[in-house]
Order: sequence, then structure tokens, then C-alpha cells
Amino acid sequence: MTTPDFAASGVITITTDFGHKGPFIGVMKGRILQEFAGANIVDLTHETLAHWPAEAGFWVSRSYRFFPAGTVHIAVVDPGVGTDREIIVILRDGHAFLAPDNGLLATLAEDPADVPVYRVSDPLLAKLGLQHPSATFHGRDVLAPLAASLASGRFAPADVGPRTHDIVPSWLDEPEKQHDGVSGVVVTVDAFGNLITNIDQSLIEQIAEPVALAGNHTLPFRRTYADVRPGELLALVNSFGVVELACGEGSAADALGAGRGAPVKVISAGQATP
Amino acid sequence: MTTPDFAASGVITITTDFGHKGPFIGVMKGRILQEFAGANIVDLTHETLAHWPAEAGFWVSRSYRFFPAGTVHIAVVDPGVGTDREIIVILRDGHAFLAPDNGLLATLAEDPADVPVYRVSDPLLAKLGLQHPSATFHGRDVLAPLAASLASGRFAPADVGPRTHDIVPSWLDEPEKQHDGVSGVVVTVDAFGNLITNIDQSLIEQIAEPVALAGNHTLPFRRTYADVRPGELLALVNSFGVVELACGEGSAADALGAGRGAPVKVISAGQATP
Amino acid sequence: MTTPDFAASGVITITTDFGHKGPFIGVMKGRILQEFAGANIVDLTHETLAHWPAEAGFWVSRSYRFFPAGTVHIAVVDPGVGTDREIIVILRDGHAFLAPDNGLLATLAEDPADVPVYRVSDPLLAKLGLQHPSATFHGRDVLAPLAASLASGRFAPADVGPRTHDIVPSWLDEPEKQHDGVSGVVVTVDAFGNLITNIDQSLIEQIAEPVALAGNHTLPFRRTYADVRPGELLALVNSFGVVELACGEGSAADALGAGRGAPVKVISAGQATP
Repeated sequence: MTTPDFAASGVITITTDFGHKGPFIGVMKGRILQEFAGANIVDLTHETLAHWPAEAGFWVSRSYRFFPAGTVHIAVVDPGVGTDREIIVILRDGHAFLAPDNGLLATLAEDPADVPVYRVSDPLLAKLGLQHPSATFHGRDVLAPLAASLASGRFAPADVGPRTHDIVPSWLDEPEKQHDGVSGVVVTVDAFGNLITNIDQSLIEQIAEPVALAGNHTLPFRRTYADVRPGELLALVNSFGVVELACGEGSAADALGAGRGAPVKVISAGQATP
Repeated sequence: MTTPDFAASGVITITTDFGHKGPFIGVMKGRILQEFAGANIVDLTHETLAHWPAEAGFWVSRSYRFFPAGTVHIAVVDPGVGTDREIIVILRDGHAFLAPDNGLLATLAEDPADVPVYRVSDPLLAKLGLQHPSATFHGRDVLAPLAASLASGRFAPADVGPRTHDIVPSWLDEPEKQHDGVSGVVVTVDAFGNLITNIDQSLIEQIAEPVALAGNHTLPFRRTYADVRPGELLALVNSFGVVELACGEGSAADALGAGRGAPVKVISAGQATP
Repeated sequence: MTTPDFAASGVITITTDFGHKGPFIGVMKGRILQEFAGANIVDLTHETLAHWPAEAGFWVSRSYRFFPAGTVHIAVVDPGVGTDREIIVILRDGHAFLAPDNGLLATLAEDPADVPVYRVSDPLLAKLGLQHPSATFHGRDVLAPLAASLASGRFAPADVGPRTHDIVPSWLDEPEKQHDGVSGVVVTVDAFGNLITNIDQSLIEQIAEPVALAGNHTLPFRRTYADVRPGELLALVNSFGVVELACGEGSAADALGAGRGAPVKVISAGQATP
């Protein structure tokens, strides 16, 4: 197998759990610009659940296709910062991904035979002058300058260190196929109160007349939000290819009293007991 | 009449009701960069009231003058996404504006004889490969790549489709001139708790010694926030040319117990009953 | 003494207390791009405490080193906007800083003999066409175009007006060295609930086995967040070089019931009464 190509586009995305208080994202961008003045930096999101790498990983894995090939994606949700946890680089579909090896990027590398994963080596960090980062902010002191070097084409993903086939698994269980449907969970809630699950559309294609079960509710599948009246609940396959629970011009989170981690099951309408 | 010129500056602004949770704004930027690597993208605001196009339209119409001529302004507040509502492009003062035809941009085109409005046509979408967007995110799948094409100069606003003189009106009533003054409403509240109305300064120029009425309060007009003592209420014509209610180093929203939609009237001081 | 050099990098940072509601930051960026299309604009933070210049100043002074030399840093926390308070430019370490003269930048210029400070003059504003700003938004109408001119190299910091040695002092007291340790305060709280103080690491280097006192708690110093169990309190020198109070995978703000302004003292462990 040949290693997939990575042709740097100069674009870098940043995903964190830092929120918008303080200069934490700003100084990451400053460090990038110190190393690569031509970087084109885009925020993906900074409001993922603190200390829980799974939501950040979910959004990165569902979003990267909408960026130019050759983009470098930094993700920092890093409860183990300053410990001996390593940093990995994943190369997939012409995009490069950098994050702590804490499960964040695991869904992008389910099959490390096809998707190369590299551990950032101490000699590389020394060569780049990054061997003495602060103990509490590797996003700024290590990941930002590393991403800048990748995005500028100074070195290739395969140059960061040895290839590995053994990374920390995701903190989030995959959806489970069952005899009567498929079970998953709500991974995140957007600003409208839409509940976004980890159930990929491919898992429900075989289900005739699917409905979604959440709490005590049975939600019909519709094509778009405007296909119900204001206040009515619906399920749909959203624009990122996963099952989402919504409410016409309202908040499904409020209507269902549900949030992150809530179980959702998709079954055939014939099996639903009303 | 000749069509106003549009000379693309490469700048694109984005205004939405998406908030900052999730990668929704980020992937719009990614799609823009896929089509136009040189785009210079600026967030206008993403915290406009959900499902209510009027606030986004208010801010776009009051803000565009502060951007270079040739800027493309995307606005997405789109409760009808995935239905047959169309997308329009407005050309005004050398700026281009893209939004769903749901009233959002209506205040920019009160007089379509002078301000050309175009409907984005299916043949154009097909030519750009955008004929099969997701059902729930046209901001990413249609508006972003369209804006990129306009901002890169690939085609002109007049090329997007037929000119129209019939667009959906604004959801917000215009201020009303009355025998004793002018009545409007609070359109939005900023982070300081300032209450910003839709009453343009031109409507109160004729009023001698104006005061603003809101709730049970009569607010004197001042030039700037520091012209009252901390905690005192005031009205002023703000830096966007509309009447604003404020409170010295405090929150007028809290002090008045008022928010979006609250009625505000400006009259002459002589007519106010204290 | 020679005046330090400033070689414009084209990078501009913006720090405000505007939050993310409304187009206030967006139009500042628009005004910058009107004057300097090649500007590379980075948000530092917009969620500093409203009307209190000290937090913005703290973050600017602790963050600028992570940007390229030749960066222009705008900071706008401006309760006196529209009054006769002046605007100053500080030149330090090859970076330029612009803000109202209200104490915001005071910590950067403790010693004006070494760090030149200039008052923006009326003739300069007139020359740039900025002599008639709005009464309420000098960030957009004065500071943004001024920063654009500095960042584009159109003129140098020393050209903005006369040098001054007399600026408004910081609203925040410096930490106090005492016989048994050093006393400071919490300046800001980040999204994780970490309490960040104004106590520089240099002030505690001489303290043997330091511990931090806050409320009724005595917090041991650790190297990084993961050096305690989830829920345990710790103190550390953070990545910006100041003392921070934290809680393993939790919020120190919640655990201590403390926030901005809370007193913190660092003493030697031997002097702590458990």
C-alpha cells in the first residue's frame, strides 16, 4: 500500500473545548502565524464538552470533507496535558489531523491498515525547538507550531515520527445494531436544541418506515424541519449524515428533556407500540 | 437606469442564527475556501434570534457600509430550509447580499426599481453542481459556494438568475410616524444590555428636545454613555444611526425589564407627562 | 536610548468586552479591511469583564509574545468613549498596542522611560479623516483604521503623536510582597472554571514549598492538571506565567465558590495552618 498523498493547502482548522473566554484560541493562532505567516486559520468549534474528547472527534470526523484537501485539522481536548500521553497525526483522504492520543481521533482511524497514524517523536519536537512546552497548554506550545509546519509543507505527516497501529480507542461506544433496529446516543446539542446522535444514515437504510424512540416519544422521520408544524417533534438524517431529533421552530432538547448521552433507538414503525 | 457595478473585493461576511456550538459556521467557511482559496471571511454575528430573519437583516443592513465595496454578505436565518423558498441576491451600493427569500433582506430593497434583486436560478445551481444540497443546511451547500463564486468574480450578481420585483417583506414593521412622535420597537440587545431600536435618526430630527418612552420611564437623550452617572438611564442615537436605550455602566435591559420587541416611542420633552 | 523598532507584520489582534452578540467586532474588521486589504486579523478575546479595562489589559500583556513581532494589538474596553479621554499607542518588544488611555495598557508601560508611549494627536486623526467619529464606537471609527495604518506600515507608532510619560494607571493593584508570602487577586476565570491570578511566577520563586490560600482552602502546587485526582484542588504556575487555582477535571470556581476579585495568597507550606 502506498501512503496517501498530502498536498498542503495552507488551511488549518482548530477544534477545542476552550469556549470563548480568555485568549487561548487567539494565542494558538498567534503561534501558528509565528511559524507560517500565510496560514489560513478557521475555527471549527470551541464549545465541545470540556474534558470529553468524543464530541470534538465527532465534529472533526463529520466536518473535514467540507474543507479543501490538504487541510490540517488541530483538535485539543486534553485532560491529560503535561503527562506522557503522546500526540498523533492521522492522514486520511488527503487531510491531516493532529490531536492528543486520547481517543479523540479514534473514529477516523478505525482501520489503521488503511489510514496511517503517526506518533509525534521527541527528536522531531527537539528539531522544531518544541521540546520544552508549558505543562498545561500543549495546544499553543506543541500542536499549533506542528500544524503550522505541516500546513506550510515544511514536512509531511509521515515525517513526524513512527507509524503506529495502536491508539487509544474512542470514549464513545459505536451504535449497536440489534434484531429490531439500531441503538445510539445523543453526542451533542446545537444552538437550536436539535439533538444530534452518532447513528449514521447507513445503519438505518434497511429499516422500513423508520421511527426514532427517545424518552417516551416516537418521532417520525421527515426530510426537513419545515415538514412539521411548529412545536411538533421529528427525526431526520441531518446534513452531516447522522440521525437528529428536532422540533419545528423549537428545541427538541427542551421538548424531550434530553441532552448529551441520551439513548436513541431507530426501529421500524411497525414495531413501535404507540 | 444602469445596474450598479459590483467589483469583487474577495471579502465575504457571514451572519446567522447558529450560535457558536457545533461546526456549522466552520464548514460554511470550508466550503467557501474549497471554491475560492483567496476568500477573506469575516463573521458579522451568529447570535441573532433563532428562526427570526429580521434581526439578522437589521444588522446586515446597518453594517455593510463598514466593509470594502465589493464585499459579499451571506445571511442565513432559514426556518424554511429544504422547502421551495428561493434564494435571492441583492446588489446595493456596490455590495452583494445573499439570503433566503424570507424577508431577511427586505429592508435593503424597499425600492426594487433602484436596488436590483435577482432570484438564484436552477440552471445556475446545476451549472455550479449545487442542484442536490442537503435538506437542512443550504448555508453550507448553496449559499457558501455561491458567495465564493461571486466573491472571486467568477460571475456577477446579475448572472445568478432573473431579476425580480416581488420578494417576501420584512417580518418587522417599520417605525410609525405619529402626530406626537415616532413609535418603534427594540430589535436587539447587545452584550452590555443596551436596547437597540429600529427608529432611524432621520425620523426624530424634527422632534424638539426629544425623549424616549419605554415602560414607565422617560429617558433623556444624551450624546454618549458617559454623559450620565453610573446607573442612570439615557437614550442616544447610536453609532449605527438608530435610537438606543442605555444605562451608565449598567444594563438598560435589566433596569427597564425590557428586551426584543419592547415598544419604544420618541416624543418631544414638552409632551411627556413626568 | 534608541526607540525600539517596529516592523509591521500585517497581523492585528482585537481584544474587547463586546461579547459575541451583534456586529460590533465584525464592523471593526470591516473598517480595518477598508484601509488595509491585506490585514491578518485575529480575535484575542471578546469576553472580558464589561467596563473594566484591567482584564483586557491582563490578557493582552500576557499574550502578545505569542504573536509575530510587528503585530498591532487593539484593545477596547472603553466606558469613557466619546469623552475627552485620549488614545495611546505603546511600543514594546517590537509590538504596537492601541487602546483608550484608561489604564488598560498600564501594565505594559510600568517604566515609560524604556517603553515609549505616544498620544494619538488630533492632527493625525484629521490627516486620516478620523476627526468626526461616532460618539459611542471609537473601536470601529478610530482604533480600527489607526491599527490598519500601523499594520500596513503607512506610518510608525512614533508618528501618531507626542510621546508621553503620564498615562492613567491600572485599575488593578499589583500583587503585594509580604513578610510571609505574596498576596494577589483572581483577575479572570476561564471556561473550565480555573481561577487565574495576577501573581507572577517570579514573585513566588523564593517561597519554599509554596501553597496557595483561597477561602478556607490550602491548595498544594502541582505541575499540571492531571497531577491530582478528579475533584481535587490544586495550584499551579500556568502557561501564561501566573498562579492559577484549578480542580482536577472540574471547576475551581465552583469548588471554591470564588471568582474575579477573590484574594489569593501564596505562602510557604510550613506557615500554613491546616
